[in-house]
Amino acid sequence: MKQPMIALMTDFGTEDGYVGAMKGRLLSIAPTARIIDISHSITPFNIRQGAFCLNNSYPHFPDKTIFVGVVDPGVGTNRRGLIVKTSQHLFVGPDNGLFSYVFHREGYQTYAIENENLTGPVSPTFHGRDVFSQIAARLANGEPLAKLGSSVTAAYSFISKPDLKAQGSIELEVIHVDHFGNLIFNFTRNDWLESGANPDLKLVLNKQEFGPPVKTFGSVGDGKFSLNWDSSDFLQLVLNKGHAANKIGINTGHPATLQL
Amino acid sequence: MKQPMIALMTDFGTEDGYVGAMKGRLLSIAPTARIIDISHSITPFNIRQGAFCLNNSYPHFPDKTIFVGVVDPGVGTNRRGLIVKTSQHLFVGPDNGLFSYVFHREGYQTYAIENENLTGPVSPTFHGRDVFSQIAARLANGEPLAKLGSSVTAAYSFISKPDLKAQGSIELEVIHVDHFGNLIFNFTRNDWLESGANPDLKLVLNKQEFGPPVKTFGSVGDGKFSLNWDSSDFLQLVLNKGHAANKIGINTGHPATLQL
Amino acid sequence: MKQPMIALMTDFGTEDGYVGAMKGRLLSIAPTARIIDISHSITPFNIRQGAFCLNNSYPHFPDKTIFVGVVDPGVGTNRRGLIVKTSQHLFVGPDNGLFSYVFHREGYQTYAIENENLTGPVSPTFHGRDVFSQIAARLANGEPLAKLGSSVTAAYSFISKPDLKAQGSIELEVIHVDHFGNLIFNFTRNDWLESGANPDLKLVLNKQEFGPPVKTFGSVGDGKFSLNWDSSDFLQLVLNKGHAANKIGINTGHPATLQL
Repeated sequence: MKQPMIALMTDFGTEDGYVGAMKGRLLSIAPTARIIDISHSITPFNIRQGAFCLNNSYPHFPDKTIFVGVVDPGVGTNRRGLIVKTSQHLFVGPDNGLFSYVFHREGYQTYAIENENLTGPVSPTFHGRDVFSQIAARLANGEPLAKLGSSVTAAYSFISKPDLKAQGSIELEVIHVDHFGNLIFNFTRNDWLESGANPDLKLVLNKQEFGPPVKTFGSVGDGKFSLNWDSSDFLQLVLNKGHAANKIGINTGHPATLQL
Repeated sequence: MKQPMIALMTDFGTEDGYVGAMKGRLLSIAPTARIIDISHSITPFNIRQGAFCLNNSYPHFPDKTIFVGVVDPGVGTNRRGLIVKTSQHLFVGPDNGLFSYVFHREGYQTYAIENENLTGPVSPTFHGRDVFSQIAARLANGEPLAKLGSSVTAAYSFISKPDLKAQGSIELEVIHVDHFGNLIFNFTRNDWLESGANPDLKLVLNKQEFGPPVKTFGSVGDGKFSLNWDSSDFLQLVLNKGHAANKIGINTGHPATLQL
Repeated sequence: MKQPMIALMTDFGTEDGYVGAMKGRLLSIAPTARIIDISHSITPFNIRQGAFCLNNSYPHFPDKTIFVGVVDPGVGTNRRGLIVKTSQHLFVGPDNGLFSYVFHREGYQTYAIENENLTGPVSPTFHGRDVFSQIAARLANGEPLAKLGSSVTAAYSFISKPDLKAQGSIELEVIHVDHFGNLIFNFTRNDWLESGANPDLKLVLNKQEFGPPVKTFGSVGDGKFSLNWDSSDFLQLVLNKGHAANKIGINTGHPATLQL
């Protein structure tokens, strides 16, 4: 028995039954599909957090996994619904930046979901159930992409790389604060190599200086700050056994300067 | 291989291992069952929230899905355990109103779970594991209903419909506040048709007037209120890209008046 | 088709995609495995809460279930990674006390995970993905324990039993506060039998006296305190339809005295 995998990420929480509705719909259309929860606790409407979460997860899934991502403040308006195809995976969700990291990292093709290809009524407030789950389940059933959407070229991405050729210092920002309070910056190990791989890199944040990167959280004492490379190779500032973001009192979007 | 589906909804949270215990028990009795999480974040003891969550989810699941619902402040007292059978689904849980919407929408038969039909010890504080999971798993294994419960006629429902024949206005209440802060009222699109389908319906809440319904959240500007029909066809008041309940400062149970 | 079961418990939350990464990795290595979520909402770094959660769950799972537990403040330092084998189950995770109850209740063998047995890069900040998920998936695929770890004798446990032979009274502590606010003590029904099974046992907490145990929450009126035996046979203090911990204002670690 074929068991296609469908992985879900939403900002719905679970307490209203919206996620249950999506799972029910998926299984009604694709009864043998295996449903895997990535998250339903993305902060409501926080597209960038959703994109970051997806970026940490999707590369590790088997080939042919279908991802449904729904963080969708524009549901029911004229924003497009997308199917994104890479060499390994398929992604279904709104064209609002949720797949920015996929576009940044992978070769891809994009298809706009066409209303006339959908079956059944479509609630203007719940495309997660009536559009994206339907499309994902039909992809899982092997329906060809061309029956579900039409090829389009541009899709929205919010990612802008820092200026790696800047002299002396690079302006960064906090792109994510994780569950443990770690502050993650828009600068990867590859960016570091590209910028010259200065082993003494230092980060200045709120006039405090941190760095260079160490191996892991516990490389410094309890309650001490350190820089390291996170598990997706982003630069992060952490507080050993503490919550760096609360301790410093900053959040996503805060600027920082990397000294080379 | 037969893979019966069992969908779970509880107010347990997951951090104590109670949900894990239920899943383990289900899989020990019905090893091929597929377990689908609807929610474990119903507010503790909030039967009405659980009923609402289940109502948003169950209609979309495949035939023969077995739902286990546990929001059960009366566990271990003499409240009955129920099996509810509809033309499509089975429901297992306490007889405390958790299945009110099922009773409201479906034809159904109810069976009281009889202690003498249970195997193994039963903790008086954890029927979710020792009674409801056991019954659901045995149903999944194909045991006949008559071996597990005895037919009963009355089951508790908390739903009372608004007076749709009232002249001029209908008294409603907020029955649910969802994850996004949307305020949902006990008035459906069908109720609207039944009451005369006035296209200019207006809702008065805290002396503010809202309406008539628009298509979706983004039909009005950011930070603006609007009425629309939610994805289960209830009337809802929403704040585009905001949290209506917090903004207005009200919660479940708050009255409102619908002007026709 | 063989469908080994892998049950997950972490303190990761789901919103950063770390759990998604683990699931993806597990399914990439062991594509037919069934992944069951126990919890991802253990309080960050709270090893004792994780151990308690696992203790409530694992005994109910089918034979051969593989548990991956990750509450791991020491990730990337020289704390060991463990595989624990009991007569029924396998456990994979850090050697930091997370499996204390397993050691307390079961016969077991322990194996230290050896770096040279791992394949692929290992992030020093994410052993949940690169070490423990890899090991669990390879166990699910049937790889022998001896290929993955080397037998070791000592493993860390934080459990110390109360002095059951004390005269007149036994000093206890709150070992867990659950989702409902129930206060759970390090004293089981077996401890009670061992200490003489006094039917009139009374608990003194903050100079208030509670007991003897009753059957269930609703054995006393709404808003009343009572003692009972929880579903894993620990003594607990509960507030019927309320939150005992908030009402009394205490948390894990608080002392109490049991009078015999």
